[in-house]
Amino acid sequence: MTEQFTHFDESGRPHMVDVTHKEDTDRVATAQAVVEMLGATRELIEGKGMKKGDVIQVAELAGIMAAKRTADLIPLCHPIPITKVTVQCAWLTNSTAELASLGIIATVHTTYRTGVEMEALTACTTAALTVYDMCKSVDRAMTIRDIKVLYKRGGKSGVFQQD
Amino acid sequence: MTEQFTHFDESGRPHMVDVTHKEDTDRVATAQAVVEMLGATRELIEGKGMKKGDVIQVAELAGIMAAKRTADLIPLCHPIPITKVTVQCAWLTNSTAELASLGIIATVHTTYRTGVEMEALTACTTAALTVYDMCKSVDRAMTIRDIKVLYKRGGKSGVFQQD
Amino acid sequence: MTEQFTHFDESGRPHMVDVTHKEDTDRVATAQAVVEMLGATRELIEGKGMKKGDVIQVAELAGIMAAKRTADLIPLCHPIPITKVTVQCAWLTNSTAELASLGIIATVHTTYRTGVEMEALTACTTAALTVYDMCKSVDRAMTIRDIKVLYKRGGKSGVFQQD
Amino acid sequence: MTEQFTHFDESGRPHMVDVTHKEDTDRVATAQAVVEMLGATRELIEGKGMKKGDVIQVAELAGIMAAKRTADLIPLCHPIPITKVTVQCAWLTNSTAELASLGIIATVHTTYRTGVEMEALTACTTAALTVYDMCKSVDRAMTIRDIKVLYKRGGKSGVFQQD
Amino acid sequence: MTEQFTHFDESGRPHMVDVTHKEDTDRVATAQAVVEMLGATRELIEGKGMKKGDVIQVAELAGIMAAKRTADLIPLCHPIPITKVTVQCAWLTNSTAELASLGIIATVHTTYRTGVEMEALTACTTAALTVYDMCKSVDRAMTIRDIKVLYKRGGKSGVFQQD
Amino acid sequence: MTEQFTHFDESGRPHMVDVTHKEDTDRVATAQAVVEMLGATRELIEGKGMKKGDVIQVAELAGIMAAKRTADLIPLCHPIPITKVTVQCAWLTNSTAELASLGIIATVHTTYRTGVEMEALTACTTAALTVYDMCKSVDRAMTIRDIKVLYKRGGKSGVFQQD
Repeated sequence: MTEQFTHFDESGRPHMVDVTHKEDTDRVATAQAVVEMLGATRELIEGKGMKKGDVIQVAELAGIMAAKRTADLIPLCHPIPITKVTVQCAWLTNSTAELASLGIIATVHTTYRTGVEMEALTACTTAALTVYDMCKSVDRAMTIRDIKVLYKRGGKSGVFQQD
Repeated sequence: MTEQFTHFDESGRPHMVDVTHKEDTDRVATAQAVVEMLGATRELIEGKGMKKGDVIQVAELAGIMAAKRTADLIPLCHPIPITKVTVQCAWLTNSTAELASLGIIATVHTTYRTGVEMEALTACTTAALTVYDMCKSVDRAMTIRDIKVLYKRGGKSGVFQQD
Repeated sequence: MTEQFTHFDESGRPHMVDVTHKEDTDRVATAQAVVEMLGATRELIEGKGMKKGDVIQVAELAGIMAAKRTADLIPLCHPIPITKVTVQCAWLTNSTAELASLGIIATVHTTYRTGVEMEALTACTTAALTVYDMCKSVDRAMTIRDIKVLYKRGGKSGVFQQD
Repeated sequence: MTEQFTHFDESGRPHMVDVTHKEDTDRVATAQAVVEMLGATRELIEGKGMKKGDVIQVAELAGIMAAKRTADLIPLCHPIPITKVTVQCAWLTNSTAELASLGIIATVHTTYRTGVEMEALTACTTAALTVYDMCKSVDRAMTIRDIKVLYKRGGKSGVFQQD
Repeated sequence: MTEQFTHFDESGRPHMVDVTHKEDTDRVATAQAVVEMLGATRELIEGKGMKKGDVIQVAELAGIMAAKRTADLIPLCHPIPITKVTVQCAWLTNSTAELASLGIIATVHTTYRTGVEMEALTACTTAALTVYDMCKSVDRAMTIRDIKVLYKRGGKSGVFQQD
Repeated sequence: MTEQFTHFDESGRPHMVDVTHKEDTDRVATAQAVVEMLGATRELIEGKGMKKGDVIQVAELAGIMAAKRTADLIPLCHPIPITKVTVQCAWLTNSTAELASLGIIATVHTTYRTGVEMEALTACTTAALTVYDMCKSVDRAMTIRDIKVLYKRGGKSGVFQQD
């Protein structure tokens, strides 16, 4: 039957790209997300007054766990044996009494043949969504913004860095 | 053993809130995400020239599938029997030759006792991450922004709408 | 942003179809798969001589568990609260000393607003793949064939039956 | 093909039992687990000195999330739409300076046609395993004991209670 | 306690076989499935007239994603870090106006110590089930047939090939 | 944004610890769980009279499959490519006509940079929970006890053994 498949035009057909012959190297990626909320919501978070619990702790943990589910969620991602994950939240200095910004930074490491930026992005994004879930009863208009890769190292493409 | 657990101070302790005695009602939520990319990246997507395949199709499907995984990812979300999901991408009119914005809108329906805004947010966010994954080899600086709930209906809190 | 999404041509866009306003009804679906193997492989299975264990037991259990994962695997399936699953294997009467056919039948029940034929198909198919996995070291040429829905009841489309 | 399956002897064949015609009722189940550890380990947990983080918080959250995965883990469990989960840890009064006992109690609610004791057991057990994971570098001999159902209400079998 | 376990008769007991001391080698497996349907169903697929969306695209993507879930579904499969997956559909030349056959071929690569034929089989089978799901409203009698391994290379057992 | 994250006090923040620069070594871990039940329940299990099927077979298989899900359940566990899993049940010699003890031993192997005791614990614990699930209709008071690591080898910490 196979010969009927040999002359495919590959354009537009999704596939998981081949990393079979790439080298294992130390790889790191750092990504961020920002959750913008009312200053009053920040106060509730800091006072641990949210009905669903300690927002920052739960969000960071959700981010770590999500990093391990990346290949389940992103269709063409390779499964990657990640060797370290950290997720950290901090209030950004541009926060005001009216509007507060919670920065979330995720860093993922591996020693494998493909990069971990999707894992870092999935981690900080899921942490941000978890913040939304825990605070939505008091602040439904929260916005998640500025999700991007800050840093990436390892593999042929070298170091990538942006602010 | 239980009596040792009766006098807990509940502050800070995460839990899945009780929806046991809430009524089943028709509920809908719509959420959005925006992926900002180079105009050149948009051209590749529209020409279906991306190495990993048809970006829009794969992203929309990834969003639909992710809606079903919401309770796996967001720690305190209830599992919800969703009855309809749509995910749609469209280029925003503020796109220029240099910088293009892909809007992603997800709408989720249920007939259950708690809302589906987390499912809608998870769907459009995962679709956005999938766009990043498929285009990252040509445009590593893409940013995901303006993730928010646009509309929510059903349940005690009534209709919520924002632009 | 939403008005940029209103005039979509829907053709070709995948979505999870709306079952919000369908009635809950008792629904049943039965599906089958057949694994064709060497007669010698059947003898090993019946003698429980396979290196990986009791093939029939493991396959039936794998089928039951897979029924619960259907919505994770099939992109546009609704998550369904299934209320009963059975998976049964039996040697078909057309088996000979050279070539044996193992029939696998899965029946799934629900009381919900959409049918369970995908759950029944996923159950018997996964059971068949499990048979392949457990016997592949001795019979790599096994073939799985005749996967189809035998019976379906409940919902607007009425009863469906085929041999 | 089906007639070859009609005269099965059912003994020994696993299946998910039929709950199709059972009534939806309010159901609650409470289960416990106990982690026995060195007094010195307890001191580290209370001082939040563990390398992996705040043990109690992480364990309680892991328990809540595991309750949602019960049907994935326990082969013949039905998927159940749980409506509330709490997991609480407390040091038991029989703890001494040498040996400390951490009690973990999980309570799960549903309004469905089958009970949630497996969800409660899975929640407190996974919380206990998480405590082990976070403390194993300092106390590899920890033991988990006395996992049992404390209370169960709802459905035909009435109330069950034990100490 | 362990000595009570030393004299087990291993027959009939399932286990995940030991690959600890096998060498990492380049491994490839190709498997196929065929979906037989009405000619009219093929026309709808080719015209992209199916209510659920572009059947071929969704099916191929579902197959790729399913390859990553193989160890979750097949009880005794090892988790394998797959390095490449492709799934391709094509109409077979034996199709007629009345009855059409859609061939699905999946190829999976790894550099690991055990083969990937189960991943290839799971990919093409899930793609076939997805075709069934998307077309079942118009053609409930579709049949999936001829699921088998076409090619396998790598490891001690050498090259395996069949038509 | 990153410099706002540099002066964190790390205490209390959960993270997945770094194993990036640890060596791959052969690692083994063995763990146990014990299910205590009525003698009458044991008789039903041995007579395969349980309504849900052959208890021992299903429990052992559930344990094997759960070992593969460990990193999904235990928040800070690394995903580990396990190379072998066995789960074995045996009646302990301290069983009496009134009270029977079923011992469950799980052994997991890997060639990786971190240990597999959590995988072994998750396997035997899930097997024990599965026994509870299958027998709960006749013996709701069953207790799971003595879950612990019996043996661990590989890595810097050397051999660990306890009774």
